[in-house]
Amino acid sequence: MINPKMPLQVTKSSCADVKSRRDIRLFDGAGDYGNEKEAGEGVRRALDDGLLWNTFHAKEHVKTLATKQLGLWGLDYFDLFLIHFPIALKYVDPAERYPPEWFGADGKTVTLQDTPMQETYHAMEELVDAGLIKNIGISNCQGSIILDILRYARIKPQVLQVELHPYLTQDALVNFAKQHEIAITAYSSFGPQSYVELSMDQGAESLFTHDVVASVAKKHEKTPAQVLLRWATQRGIAVVPKSNDHQRLTQNLDSEAFDLTPEEIKSVSALNINLRLNDPADIDPRMGIFA
Amino acid sequence: MINPKMPLQVTKSSCADVKSRRDIRLFDGAGDYGNEKEAGEGVRRALDDGLLWNTFHAKEHVKTLATKQLGLWGLDYFDLFLIHFPIALKYVDPAERYPPEWFGADGKTVTLQDTPMQETYHAMEELVDAGLIKNIGISNCQGSIILDILRYARIKPQVLQVELHPYLTQDALVNFAKQHEIAITAYSSFGPQSYVELSMDQGAESLFTHDVVASVAKKHEKTPAQVLLRWATQRGIAVVPKSNDHQRLTQNLDSEAFDLTPEEIKSVSALNINLRLNDPADIDPRMGIFA
Repeated sequence: MINPKMPLQVTKSSCADVKSRRDIRLFDGAGDYGNEKEAGEGVRRALDDGLLWNTFHAKEHVKTLATKQLGLWGLDYFDLFLIHFPIALKYVDPAERYPPEWFGADGKTVTLQDTPMQETYHAMEELVDAGLIKNIGISNCQGSIILDILRYARIKPQVLQVELHPYLTQDALVNFAKQHEIAITAYSSFGPQSYVELSMDQGAESLFTHDVVASVAKKHEKTPAQVLLRWATQRGIAVVPKSNDHQRLTQNLDSEAFDLTPEEIKSVSALNINLRLNDPADIDPRMGIFA
Repeated sequence: MINPKMPLQVTKSSCADVKSRRDIRLFDGAGDYGNEKEAGEGVRRALDDGLLWNTFHAKEHVKTLATKQLGLWGLDYFDLFLIHFPIALKYVDPAERYPPEWFGADGKTVTLQDTPMQETYHAMEELVDAGLIKNIGISNCQGSIILDILRYARIKPQVLQVELHPYLTQDALVNFAKQHEIAITAYSSFGPQSYVELSMDQGAESLFTHDVVASVAKKHEKTPAQVLLRWATQRGIAVVPKSNDHQRLTQNLDSEAFDLTPEEIKSVSALNINLRLNDPADIDPRMGIFA
């Protein structure tokens, strides 16, 4: 059985030690055999739902949303609460539509809202003050806006979650975050894989079958997925792989049990082509947060 | 003779028509033959000095600096005043050191200052209110921080000045700025050329001798520099080439007198390798504004 209090620990509690945090998280999320599906669901929800969505950026909505999410979980606090995108969209009352997603009621119009990031960030700090969250995270942010957040943050962001895989290695951002002592969590660690079913993979070759990844995997008698996860964690980057499949969850866990050589890491990193698969500008070009 | 009031017009007065503004600018800056050197100096100063440097980002320093610069010019107002970088550095009293540049008194330490962009931007708006500047510009900004500025700006930024040349075509940023009706001005239009004497060209092949540029130039009986300028202006991007050389100033002027074919523009654009030559992270990795 999943303890409803457990998903807390699948989020990040500090940026002190990426590797040990990761081990703890996976132990909690998938440690109870026979409940793989629920564990997978738990992991998924903890990761997807501990996030402040774009429609709740106004200071009067940040706390409402956090409280609502804690209620859904039956939790007293989140270890980590992330601002999902540096994009503010028009407020949607959860009673009307939840989750609200990108578009308005017509299903096609994006309506930006003039809530500066500073207002949202200060509201997140108030959640810490109120004990509703332990740490503030940001996601999908570039260097310039992170530097700006650091200028007004009373409580520094602990985690930056970004798309990161061998086709988008984010070397400059990783180095920048390290300089400012912000831990990086990679999402979409498997690259195009998660985007195939959404028809958003941009026709990129799967990293699971890519020669470079496959040959490294074969050498270590591991799966390509394990190589992709280990490639990230050896760079000091946390990962959040999702799966509802028991074998895959176990394999993901096991990806810490071997080491890539520096040459192998370099060969996988050399696949970088700055391929960004999750870009809100593809939904509406005004949302060019990665431009 | 250069009319001391003229350099005003070498800056951008609106984003209505990039091409016509550019023609006016060059007419004013280099129209009076026999004063090429002073004209060149005038162009240089208008472009380099109509900028708010990083050490003056605090609200109490923005007006002081603008007033000082107007005094140096003998002007009543600037048509355009640009925030040079989305970076705030520790204040340096102009009486102590001017220009203050990047480093402290020891010549090697960079000291960041916690002045949010919002504070600086609102101080720029007050310069407009006071009649000291006509338009606000921003420079070296990425999409995420521009989107944030647009959320709190009472007076929208009219111009975004960024490094832009065939090795760094900035397609996403150009499209994003267009969506938000911000005119783009390219700096370093000649790519590595301006960085050779600073030993900052990263060993990149000169665009002046590059086969693609040279062959297009030859076909049109123009210089490679003219091709590089026309490539930008035909994309709707303003340019600010510098030269103290009469012949080159005339050639730059003449770069509007021919058109590249769409195929030629495409072939020059295909040189893009995301090569950024002016990156403050190279001075101090904490300043990763392009990460």
